[in-house]
Amino acid sequence: MTNFLSLADVTDLDALIQSGLDAKANPFASQHLGKNKTIGLIFFNSSLRTRLSTQKAAQNLGMNVMIMNVGQDSWGLEMEEGVLMNGDKAEHIREAAAVIGRYCNIIGIRAFAELQDRDKDYREQVMHQFAKYARVPIVNLESATRHPLQSLADCITIEEVRRADVSLPKRPKVVLTWLPHFKPLPQAVGNSFSEWMNARAQAGQIEFVITHPEGYELATEFAGTAPVIYNQQEAFDGADFIYGKNWSSYTQYGQVLTQDPSWAVTMEHMNRTNNGKFMHCLPVRRNLKVSDAVLDSPQSLVIEQAANREWSAQAVLKEILTSL
Amino acid sequence: MTNFLSLADVTDLDALIQSGLDAKANPFASQHLGKNKTIGLIFFNSSLRTRLSTQKAAQNLGMNVMIMNVGQDSWGLEMEEGVLMNGDKAEHIREAAAVIGRYCNIIGIRAFAELQDRDKDYREQVMHQFAKYARVPIVNLESATRHPLQSLADCITIEEVRRADVSLPKRPKVVLTWLPHFKPLPQAVGNSFSEWMNARAQAGQIEFVITHPEGYELATEFAGTAPVIYNQQEAFDGADFIYGKNWSSYTQYGQVLTQDPSWAVTMEHMNRTNNGKFMHCLPVRRNLKVSDAVLDSPQSLVIEQAANREWSAQAVLKEILTSL
Amino acid sequence: MTNFLSLADVTDLDALIQSGLDAKANPFASQHLGKNKTIGLIFFNSSLRTRLSTQKAAQNLGMNVMIMNVGQDSWGLEMEEGVLMNGDKAEHIREAAAVIGRYCNIIGIRAFAELQDRDKDYREQVMHQFAKYARVPIVNLESATRHPLQSLADCITIEEVRRADVSLPKRPKVVLTWLPHFKPLPQAVGNSFSEWMNARAQAGQIEFVITHPEGYELATEFAGTAPVIYNQQEAFDGADFIYGKNWSSYTQYGQVLTQDPSWAVTMEHMNRTNNGKFMHCLPVRRNLKVSDAVLDSPQSLVIEQAANREWSAQAVLKEILTSL
Repeated sequence: MTNFLSLADVTDLDALIQSGLDAKANPFASQHLGKNKTIGLIFFNSSLRTRLSTQKAAQNLGMNVMIMNVGQDSWGLEMEEGVLMNGDKAEHIREAAAVIGRYCNIIGIRAFAELQDRDKDYREQVMHQFAKYARVPIVNLESATRHPLQSLADCITIEEVRRADVSLPKRPKVVLTWLPHFKPLPQAVGNSFSEWMNARAQAGQIEFVITHPEGYELATEFAGTAPVIYNQQEAFDGADFIYGKNWSSYTQYGQVLTQDPSWAVTMEHMNRTNNGKFMHCLPVRRNLKVSDAVLDSPQSLVIEQAANREWSAQAVLKEILTSL
Repeated sequence: MTNFLSLADVTDLDALIQSGLDAKANPFASQHLGKNKTIGLIFFNSSLRTRLSTQKAAQNLGMNVMIMNVGQDSWGLEMEEGVLMNGDKAEHIREAAAVIGRYCNIIGIRAFAELQDRDKDYREQVMHQFAKYARVPIVNLESATRHPLQSLADCITIEEVRRADVSLPKRPKVVLTWLPHFKPLPQAVGNSFSEWMNARAQAGQIEFVITHPEGYELATEFAGTAPVIYNQQEAFDGADFIYGKNWSSYTQYGQVLTQDPSWAVTMEHMNRTNNGKFMHCLPVRRNLKVSDAVLDSPQSLVIEQAANREWSAQAVLKEILTSL
Repeated sequence: MTNFLSLADVTDLDALIQSGLDAKANPFASQHLGKNKTIGLIFFNSSLRTRLSTQKAAQNLGMNVMIMNVGQDSWGLEMEEGVLMNGDKAEHIREAAAVIGRYCNIIGIRAFAELQDRDKDYREQVMHQFAKYARVPIVNLESATRHPLQSLADCITIEEVRRADVSLPKRPKVVLTWLPHFKPLPQAVGNSFSEWMNARAQAGQIEFVITHPEGYELATEFAGTAPVIYNQQEAFDGADFIYGKNWSSYTQYGQVLTQDPSWAVTMEHMNRTNNGKFMHCLPVRRNLKVSDAVLDSPQSLVIEQAANREWSAQAVLKEILTSL
């Protein structure tokens, strides 16, 4: 694996999931791999789980970790080519990426969508510029349109539950549901989860369904051929996994079209499922998107899912280290 | 030791002080204990000594350290239960604590008093929520009402001096004195120092006296039965240790009732003592709270006291690691 | 080496350059030197290369690294002696430096010029106060008037090129050129580069020339006896190395006297050189100070120069560790 920017960088998803589960069972078994290797974690945006879990995973593998908050520890970076740099950005990504690439064996980057210009966000400029100029493997720590370390953790979590619960159907039903929120949020997690679940569905591992209010359709490249059901209750019928997430509109880009509170997941919603599990990538605003009762019920997987971020990152870093 | 939130978590204070002195004499002797163990240091507020000394102590013990500034590296955390999270806090402490607890073997937390609502501050919500939800040991890096790592360092410092100076009385006189300041500061250090010194006094190790202007009485649970003397000069008579600190009023909560500069400690004040040592937890505003002459005199212990923060943290972390 | 504040702390520059090249060839050969040793990196200002390269160098040497952003992770520090601290600075450098010196074996400090008061900046108060009170070796990570780790990296870079390119003259011509900028920037890099190149010139290694518009003369202690040519084109004639940097006026302290765009380096400028190499310490504002064409040409050394910051820091830290 040379980069981990999206699902397209994964050659064997089953093996990667298994590698994550192996890391969870035996975290320090590959500690020799990272000796005298350094990962740089570059944050253009805030982070809790990604910051800590990736750092932890790298340390489990024996790596050194260097963290930098862009615009706080350092200055802003110019992303556009050919411009006269007479504004507030003191350094160009060409130099910054190339230089960081000389100090690090692997670079992780977090850079959210700005939600102003859809074409710009979906071009994934920051990731691609880093991948182009850094000359070392790049790991996506959540980009404008994707969050693949989260999606891998989600796959690991679903696989864990499936192995533990023999009563689950051979192809459990996984439902991605939009949740209400007052702020415009990126589509990254919804996009990525769809991309990865579509792959799992095509491999015959699950059945995948998307539900959201009209106007919240994800980009076709992510939604794929998954059935979209605008009636949330109908979508929840017989579901084994409910995956909640808010995102702003893709078609009316970055807009909040509705905050309809009936889309927030409560126990009433969960009761329509097949004793389904509830998943969310966190952070989650309690009682706005999901009720306390759901989050504090045994059906909630959100903490285990977050815990699995460590093993997701470790599986990816291990594969990259092996190929260095 | 499962948590280190206050003196109540200490089973054998003499042994803990000795452990700190042992760490100072031989910092790397227990390096095996922390191998492949991780401490997360979570700062809701600024820090210099606590940040560096705790990190250093953990590294002396062979641990990995992950540091996060809440509200800067990540977003704000909601502390109240059962609320609709439609404000500026993006994540609830329930999830944040549980997740950090999955990445870390020990968590250190700094969260100051807000000095707006006494009941809220004295409930010590942040510490208790972390202790409840993280499911790993919590270390208090200064909370709303206590700073026990400082108090342990203070005990270590006094013990060091006592062993070195045979001319000291069997029960040296320790005086906690309020100092003037124009800003309202928390009671945490004053509270904790009183709590720990009362314990030392009860064990027959010292004599403990508190002096401050009227209206600055500490909460009874901390002041205990220590004599309170409103005349600072009288309190200083024959003292072996002067411990200076400003705090805002507990009774008129968070108020600055006086800035009387005569309470600032000068050499004239120190001359009333028994060639007493001067202690302060730092940071200290020179010439506002204490004169240059006192801080730069051989009677000042402030640097040694700060240096002992490393050994205080190491003693606590060692005891927690041993019990993991 | 007890401190690394300026060239004056270097006893054998040739040996130090060779040590940097040795570290580049074999980064982990001296890893035993830093075992159980800690460097504290204290930033009063933003940093990218210095932050990452010094951290990396310390880790290559087996050291632990603690990083603190003053005014962000902690509070502001008072630098003046004898003042009544009733302003916005909560701690004095006397205490801060002494305390950090107790937690760290080496301290690195970055503190830029404020460009308000020339005497104050050129007194180098922060560095000298740290050196005075910390009681451990201090490394200059760019101070008000100097950036010696950069200058050492520059020497390493020039030496590398000279060894690789036998067609270079025995004493290659190195030109420091002022570049236009709309913001007032410190003189530190220009000062330091001049100081180090004057030493190389005196040792018969290079020929050194400075070019800038009138009014941008560097302080005599740095410019030394190097020829100053106000005609940039003339200065570039036959040059082997062009070192570009903006600085504000020293004589009219901190002022931007001109932004004349003709001083920005383009390929036309470079064509007057002896197929010269282009150097810049970064960050560089593209097309304001230097054209894209120059930075992206094979004549540009800027990335290699930045990469050599790691080996510059490692050479310095190694020498300090050896003398601890």
